[in-house]
Amino acid sequence: MAQSLLEQLVEALRCMPGIGRKSAQRIAHQLLQRNRDAARHLSKVMLEAMENIGHCQRCRTFTENTVCHRCQNKKRDDSLLCIVENPADVDSIEEANYRGRYFVLLGHLSPLDGIGPDDIGLDELPVLLDKENLKEVILATSSTIEGEATAHFIGEMVKARGIPVSRIAHGVPMGGELEYVNSLTIAHAINGRKQI
Amino acid sequence: MAQSLLEQLVEALRCMPGIGRKSAQRIAHQLLQRNRDAARHLSKVMLEAMENIGHCQRCRTFTENTVCHRCQNKKRDDSLLCIVENPADVDSIEEANYRGRYFVLLGHLSPLDGIGPDDIGLDELPVLLDKENLKEVILATSSTIEGEATAHFIGEMVKARGIPVSRIAHGVPMGGELEYVNSLTIAHAINGRKQI
Repeated sequence: MAQSLLEQLVEALRCMPGIGRKSAQRIAHQLLQRNRDAARHLSKVMLEAMENIGHCQRCRTFTENTVCHRCQNKKRDDSLLCIVENPADVDSIEEANYRGRYFVLLGHLSPLDGIGPDDIGLDELPVLLDKENLKEVILATSSTIEGEATAHFIGEMVKARGIPVSRIAHGVPMGGELEYVNSLTIAHAINGRKQI
Repeated sequence: MAQSLLEQLVEALRCMPGIGRKSAQRIAHQLLQRNRDAARHLSKVMLEAMENIGHCQRCRTFTENTVCHRCQNKKRDDSLLCIVENPADVDSIEEANYRGRYFVLLGHLSPLDGIGPDDIGLDELPVLLDKENLKEVILATSSTIEGEATAHFIGEMVKARGIPVSRIAHGVPMGGELEYVNSLTIAHAINGRKQI
């Protein structure tokens, strides 16, 4: 027997992280029963997002434009560059009132998984370091082993160009993913940064 | 400033029950970063489901057909009718190997919210009771106050037609430790005790 449309929907919902079979069933039933218009809207926005959101040419974060709104904003501090692993980390750092620029790696170095410098945009970084007039580069990769290794690698690259480079302070709990840390802790971590 | 497409997606994802702002952000980022094809598929199936899934003409559960596959199945026991509140409850009861028929209320009686018998299909139930040759009606509404009231109401309706009617047993859940079961449940379990 072919899968019913409801079963197909439950299966499809499971592509979302953190959604297991029971949650997917609950979501499908609730949307069908109470909120079809919202689900239609979600369907539309999701397709639009998947088709149109690409990466900012300058900082590599998610955006539907060539250059993201933060990189276009003339009021931001051009002399500060914060390097993070994921677009979600940019939001976390924004909430801590940082108003400089970003560079998003979209990952971290992980030689065992075959992820080298070029896979996380580190071939683009030197161009940016040489072109822009930076007073400081802040390394805000996660405090996991891979994040630390990535920070170390980039630190050497930046220092070689005589640009001051710092690492956010270890107010951030070890092993924690930046996305889940509260903004006060991140503000502390940014204030307590140390030159390396 | 207009909302970015990413922000629109995060907002739209929150229509799903149990998904707050942080989860929505995480889902949006993960799908964009790792699973765009699955998200496109989800978007398509979701729209199809919202447009095409209606209610079974006989049992009122969700289906994209006029009559659902369970009501079409000739091998099921026609003489048993199980009445549940929601389509999701049908799945739970299927898992317990029940193989009779269903009638789905799509809610429960709740006079304070203005939900009367006609709003939960109880105008259709008499037709079904009179037409089908039923040996028993099983009331499997929730054991909440509204669920009990609904069961009582339907019970009277079925008894008036001389059809045997039963209520699913209430007691200590299988595998449950007595220490963690609430006292009302234990009171039910003691009252409903069976000689062994």
